[in-house]
Amino acid sequence: MLIVHKYGGTSVGDLERIENVARRVAAARAEGKDLVVVVSAMSGETNKLIEYAHHFAQTPSRREMDILLSSGERVTASLLAIALQEMGYPAVAMTGRQAGIRTDDTHMFARIEEINTEAMRRHIDAGEIIVVAGFQGIDQQGNVTTLGRGGSDLSAVAIAGALGADACEIYSDVDGIYTTDPRIEPQARKLERISYDEMLELASLGAKVLQSRSVELAKKMGVTIVARSSFSDAEGTIITEEVEGMEAVLVSGIALDKNQARVSLRDVVDRPGVAAEIFNQLAADQINVDMIIQNASTDGTTHLGFTVPQSEIEQAKKSIAAFEEEIGGMDFDEQIAKVSVVGVGMKSHSGVAATAFTAMADNSINIEMIATSEIKVSMVIDEKFGELAVRVLHEAYALDR
Amino acid sequence: MLIVHKYGGTSVGDLERIENVARRVAAARAEGKDLVVVVSAMSGETNKLIEYAHHFAQTPSRREMDILLSSGERVTASLLAIALQEMGYPAVAMTGRQAGIRTDDTHMFARIEEINTEAMRRHIDAGEIIVVAGFQGIDQQGNVTTLGRGGSDLSAVAIAGALGADACEIYSDVDGIYTTDPRIEPQARKLERISYDEMLELASLGAKVLQSRSVELAKKMGVTIVARSSFSDAEGTIITEEVEGMEAVLVSGIALDKNQARVSLRDVVDRPGVAAEIFNQLAADQINVDMIIQNASTDGTTHLGFTVPQSEIEQAKKSIAAFEEEIGGMDFDEQIAKVSVVGVGMKSHSGVAATAFTAMADNSINIEMIATSEIKVSMVIDEKFGELAVRVLHEAYALDR
Repeated sequence: MLIVHKYGGTSVGDLERIENVARRVAAARAEGKDLVVVVSAMSGETNKLIEYAHHFAQTPSRREMDILLSSGERVTASLLAIALQEMGYPAVAMTGRQAGIRTDDTHMFARIEEINTEAMRRHIDAGEIIVVAGFQGIDQQGNVTTLGRGGSDLSAVAIAGALGADACEIYSDVDGIYTTDPRIEPQARKLERISYDEMLELASLGAKVLQSRSVELAKKMGVTIVARSSFSDAEGTIITEEVEGMEAVLVSGIALDKNQARVSLRDVVDRPGVAAEIFNQLAADQINVDMIIQNASTDGTTHLGFTVPQSEIEQAKKSIAAFEEEIGGMDFDEQIAKVSVVGVGMKSHSGVAATAFTAMADNSINIEMIATSEIKVSMVIDEKFGELAVRVLHEAYALDR
Repeated sequence: MLIVHKYGGTSVGDLERIENVARRVAAARAEGKDLVVVVSAMSGETNKLIEYAHHFAQTPSRREMDILLSSGERVTASLLAIALQEMGYPAVAMTGRQAGIRTDDTHMFARIEEINTEAMRRHIDAGEIIVVAGFQGIDQQGNVTTLGRGGSDLSAVAIAGALGADACEIYSDVDGIYTTDPRIEPQARKLERISYDEMLELASLGAKVLQSRSVELAKKMGVTIVARSSFSDAEGTIITEEVEGMEAVLVSGIALDKNQARVSLRDVVDRPGVAAEIFNQLAADQINVDMIIQNASTDGTTHLGFTVPQSEIEQAKKSIAAFEEEIGGMDFDEQIAKVSVVGVGMKSHSGVAATAFTAMADNSINIEMIATSEIKVSMVIDEKFGELAVRVLHEAYALDR
């Protein structure tokens, strides 16, 4: 059995924690597993290096940043390999390049294009535990590249896929995926399993355990992820394809996002292409538009509503100003919360959305916007009701059971 | 004109100092020079990483140590390149691998076997300043290797040689090579030029500006080194082949080494091979024997004297104990100093050694051991006279003029 482990920055945050990780890896090894371990930089290291670079330049060149930033993971990988060797396990550290990770040349946000597993295979066949510096690779020209935030997860999933590993266990300081944030709803329950699609919705809605990119890649490559804690022996949550048993689950989680702002454009001239122009402009100005709602036209004008990250609202106002003549009126609201119900069961069950709306109404929470996907219902409400809405919905879908 | 600059750990010790280095490089560039800059890790970084590794293992595996230790230079190289770019200079950071540095596979003490200058040439032709992470390369299999202490000097000299650079300027916190240590003899004078051979003798005698390996390589490749300070604009010392003008110089420097201990073996059985056995044993026990003196045999026994580093004297005693039966008596003295007179002029001038002995006698300094080479006279004396001997010899050879 071949398993990929991935340990994030907090899990390898200091020398004692690296030793703790070595013990976990050794325990898995003792069970007879072949192991590839992917590690992040010690927490704080990457930010320290970014600060160093910003001492010299506001926007340092990305090519050089990649040489800089890739150094942190190399430190952790070699230290962990040394720790394992000292415990009597044959182990070998590999940089992204040595592990055969080839990316495109988009520095700081590179995409993995190919993994040449030859060298890793050789070490596995020799009975060695491989410790790979995550987050990095090289491009076709041999330049060092990094994969962006969450890049070590990506490295781990891609390696697991390329090697056909039985699972990719991603260790962090939380022990799995919960039905909702336990700090908001103490009844929140850890999920045993969740589908890629549900995880994708939850990730895009702010669940911080896994980033969307890694889940997408896992889905594409068919890699089973297990989200676990490096600080406990709890079982964790399995992220995998939808399976029969999962269909019974109607709703798997409730997510809350308080970092959005709402933009409402009233009486927009209803001629073809106006909406496209507006959203093209927002995209050109690098604003991440999330929910988009357009009401059916009535009197030759229409209403357009959407949400953007709060940090981008000022830029959004400027972008929209160019369309003043086509827009009757606009208002902006930063005091909003987006609460979402996620579950694959929605695909085959009607009434899931109705349950949400009823629960909100029963608690006098006004819904300002609604957007749905196949497996998600998102609602924009007044920010002050955010936590209440989470608890109400958690209860309405009986997620604590 | 193509110049290689090399900046040591102290010169890039913090962000302000890296900025200072950037200004120096920019100034050289403004003079129209093509530049390759080789950098060490920020001072303290390499030691910090070594400490990290020793947290896990007393003798961490060298292959993993190399991945670990090579990270420090990458940080400095990328930061310096970023600083140069911000000042408006086209610059590019390169790791040892990217600079084409191929070594043998002796981890932590690798030797440079070959430099593929293709990539560097391309960047130079494109008008870019290259900043290379020193101290590192890769072996034939693509493993990361490091070159040992002083490795960045080696990188710089090797690159200068491979590119046929006009000079290799090595920057540190001292501004050149002095006739002797200015802290001992305030009249010490900075040398304008010194030959490779003289520099080699001085380096092996404890002058800390340049390590022997780099000077040897420079001699072999015909690279002119300039030893300069990164903290001043002083001219520095040129290390080069002996030239006509240099022959006039009889003695170029006086060196003092107080870290040696003397071993005297009396009445050693004078049969062939005894000395060989003793020194083979010392070598097997990894003791660095320096001066070796053997008196002509008189009564069927002989006297053997040699020096070893003080830190190895205890082990030396153990190693010699095995020969108890062949040795009449032994004594050890850690309170010694080795003072040496170095100069290419000795080759063609007699009387240099006599001047030294006379100066010592005039000052009642007893000489315990003498060893000479073509361009050096070394004397072992009582440790307490070390500094006095330096001043006396400096005066005797009129080195202040």
